[in-house]
Amino acid sequence: MSSIDRLVAGFRAFRVSNFEHRPELYEQLVSQGQSPEVLMIACSDSRVDPALLLSARPGELFVVRNVANLIPPYQPDGQYHGTSAALEFAVRDLKVSHIVILGHSRCGGMEALRHTAMGGGSDREFIAQWVSIAESACRCAHPHDLSSPEGVRLMEHAALKVSLGNLMTFPWVRERVEAGNLELHGWWFDLEKGELWGGTEGPEPFNRVA
Amino acid sequence: MSSIDRLVAGFRAFRVSNFEHRPELYEQLVSQGQSPEVLMIACSDSRVDPALLLSARPGELFVVRNVANLIPPYQPDGQYHGTSAALEFAVRDLKVSHIVILGHSRCGGMEALRHTAMGGGSDREFIAQWVSIAESACRCAHPHDLSSPEGVRLMEHAALKVSLGNLMTFPWVRERVEAGNLELHGWWFDLEKGELWGGTEGPEPFNRVA
Amino acid sequence: MSSIDRLVAGFRAFRVSNFEHRPELYEQLVSQGQSPEVLMIACSDSRVDPALLLSARPGELFVVRNVANLIPPYQPDGQYHGTSAALEFAVRDLKVSHIVILGHSRCGGMEALRHTAMGGGSDREFIAQWVSIAESACRCAHPHDLSSPEGVRLMEHAALKVSLGNLMTFPWVRERVEAGNLELHGWWFDLEKGELWGGTEGPEPFNRVA
Amino acid sequence: MSSIDRLVAGFRAFRVSNFEHRPELYEQLVSQGQSPEVLMIACSDSRVDPALLLSARPGELFVVRNVANLIPPYQPDGQYHGTSAALEFAVRDLKVSHIVILGHSRCGGMEALRHTAMGGGSDREFIAQWVSIAESACRCAHPHDLSSPEGVRLMEHAALKVSLGNLMTFPWVRERVEAGNLELHGWWFDLEKGELWGGTEGPEPFNRVA
Repeated sequence: MSSIDRLVAGFRAFRVSNFEHRPELYEQLVSQGQSPEVLMIACSDSRVDPALLLSARPGELFVVRNVANLIPPYQPDGQYHGTSAALEFAVRDLKVSHIVILGHSRCGGMEALRHTAMGGGSDREFIAQWVSIAESACRCAHPHDLSSPEGVRLMEHAALKVSLGNLMTFPWVRERVEAGNLELHGWWFDLEKGELWGGTEGPEPFNRVA
Repeated sequence: MSSIDRLVAGFRAFRVSNFEHRPELYEQLVSQGQSPEVLMIACSDSRVDPALLLSARPGELFVVRNVANLIPPYQPDGQYHGTSAALEFAVRDLKVSHIVILGHSRCGGMEALRHTAMGGGSDREFIAQWVSIAESACRCAHPHDLSSPEGVRLMEHAALKVSLGNLMTFPWVRERVEAGNLELHGWWFDLEKGELWGGTEGPEPFNRVA
Repeated sequence: MSSIDRLVAGFRAFRVSNFEHRPELYEQLVSQGQSPEVLMIACSDSRVDPALLLSARPGELFVVRNVANLIPPYQPDGQYHGTSAALEFAVRDLKVSHIVILGHSRCGGMEALRHTAMGGGSDREFIAQWVSIAESACRCAHPHDLSSPEGVRLMEHAALKVSLGNLMTFPWVRERVEAGNLELHGWWFDLEKGELWGGTEGPEPFNRVA
Repeated sequence: MSSIDRLVAGFRAFRVSNFEHRPELYEQLVSQGQSPEVLMIACSDSRVDPALLLSARPGELFVVRNVANLIPPYQPDGQYHGTSAALEFAVRDLKVSHIVILGHSRCGGMEALRHTAMGGGSDREFIAQWVSIAESACRCAHPHDLSSPEGVRLMEHAALKVSLGNLMTFPWVRERVEAGNLELHGWWFDLEKGELWGGTEGPEPFNRVA
């Protein structure tokens, strides 16, 4: 079966389950609209789908997925800003109570960043520039340490802290956080061990969450 | 239970299922790396998670999610382009065989676009600019028709065609499509009826897929 | 991993999902007790688990599983009658509204019955006697026809009708059926085709249900 | 939606998932036949479906379900013995490697047994006789203790030990156990706490398994 045929069959399975067998949830999600409490910023990596990782149901997570789950700094310049637009919609229109940035080990985007930090070149047009959002994360460890698994891990955690910090550059995020109406969370999923680690903006190390 | 506590408990359920009970899949996804065949461009809306909608397993879909599942035009200008970076990584590094843009009915981003097209103003900083990527979609129907459900549906389909067209402005996408190594798909999920519709770039109407 | 270790890990997955992540259902099933509307009589075959086949949740089905999903005739003689005891508990104590007897193709118990009907011997102590409950089903086709797939299928359907008939020999079943408070259903699952067929007591053929 | 309509819709969901979307498992289960390694003796209670409790897939468990998950003693007398027939088929034909008897708290069958042991009468025809298989379990505690939760728990565990003992009265079970080719397990699911406890034949208490 081709991958597309399998996805279409997968949709039919979803359709029968959610529109014929147990139609209550979607009937409600249509009639009442969505009201997710959580904005999830996750990586595009095929192994870290947040609905699967967190056993979430339709309606629970408003989700942005980009390479390396990055938040760019606040830059209201009239250009196209996909992640900032989603952030704005989630915070100002949907009024979510939580923003979770969900990173993970073995991230290809982090690897591209590390490659550049160690002096490597690239013939790509967008990826290096995009991941440079987190370039200060490479300074969390001495350059030679970026070759070790522990150095990579520290860099991945530091990149999450950069994005958490960038969130606070958006005035309507900062305002809600300071008023106690919005909480920011940094989570990091260890693909090898199946562990979830968490941290906040600032220098403190991450701790095991689950 | 708070929404965050529920997500952490949901992670534990995922962890036990995928790292203790049936560890084979993740062991393989770690040791062999990801090799998804499909790049999925989906909306951030909490009701249209592509893994749930298409019954996909970890490893099957490389996923971008932004407001209104839009592809901006090719613009290699050294700015931050999250969607283009993910597109580049999926096409040039992961070498996916398919790109699916997955839209849906009742899209808040499309609503914002329609609002502007009908002369409404906005006090938002990013969202109107972002959805303007698809503004030509509003011309698929006479302005007064954008008030009817059928007009909105036509606009939503037209917006998918704009993004399909924008995909072809990326030279390394066009090249692979023309060489027969990459297929582009436009899908639209009808939330009310639980139906999947599909279309291609160009003026032809969408057809029921499933 | 041994089959037992996998089951224990499977329990942990169930435990986290149903007692930590989404505890509402079991909290209710404990505090209010069970109140299933359906008694399901299904086969012990590992491929026809009724909860999986019918996407049922905990609490929905009171289930008997024996070889070939048979109902013996009413025989209140003070011996051990496991199936009759479950039937009694479901009908008189739980007051179910439906009894479904769920048969299937490629049934080992039906094969044992067919073997005997065609003159074969057996060195087993219990199985031949147990499946003889349905021996009249073998007469639904000429003996030589029991070699054909169509003959086996007719026999399997006829065996369901025998059990449906036996249900009506229990006075407290018959009484409720005649009063319109209990419905009897005969279903047959085609393992090869993934089809569900249904029939009632009497000579009419089975019809496709789903 | 009626309970029967919901089950039919549930079958369609199963059908699409297992015959259209991921047909590999059932194709194999049809072409190669079943080969479960485990015979599971579970209760008919709607809250303790073994496939759901143990996250088992089709093909993994050959299942008997009767009231109170009882094994009667070996009695090859030419009468109908449903549980013994399934036991014989699983052990002698399918050659399972494990037999698990899966009990649970808040069992209606155990309650009926306790009721009788405490001198209560019954107007039922089958249930009291059936559960009397485990009547010696009531003597594990002083009669007045059967009123306490701890006494009931001890009785439920003792009933499992009775069934484990009865298994050994079947000569072809004993032979395989003694040859090391078959293992017997007694498991008890605590519905309130979501815990799994295990024990063996004999006087030793049960221990927490998961």
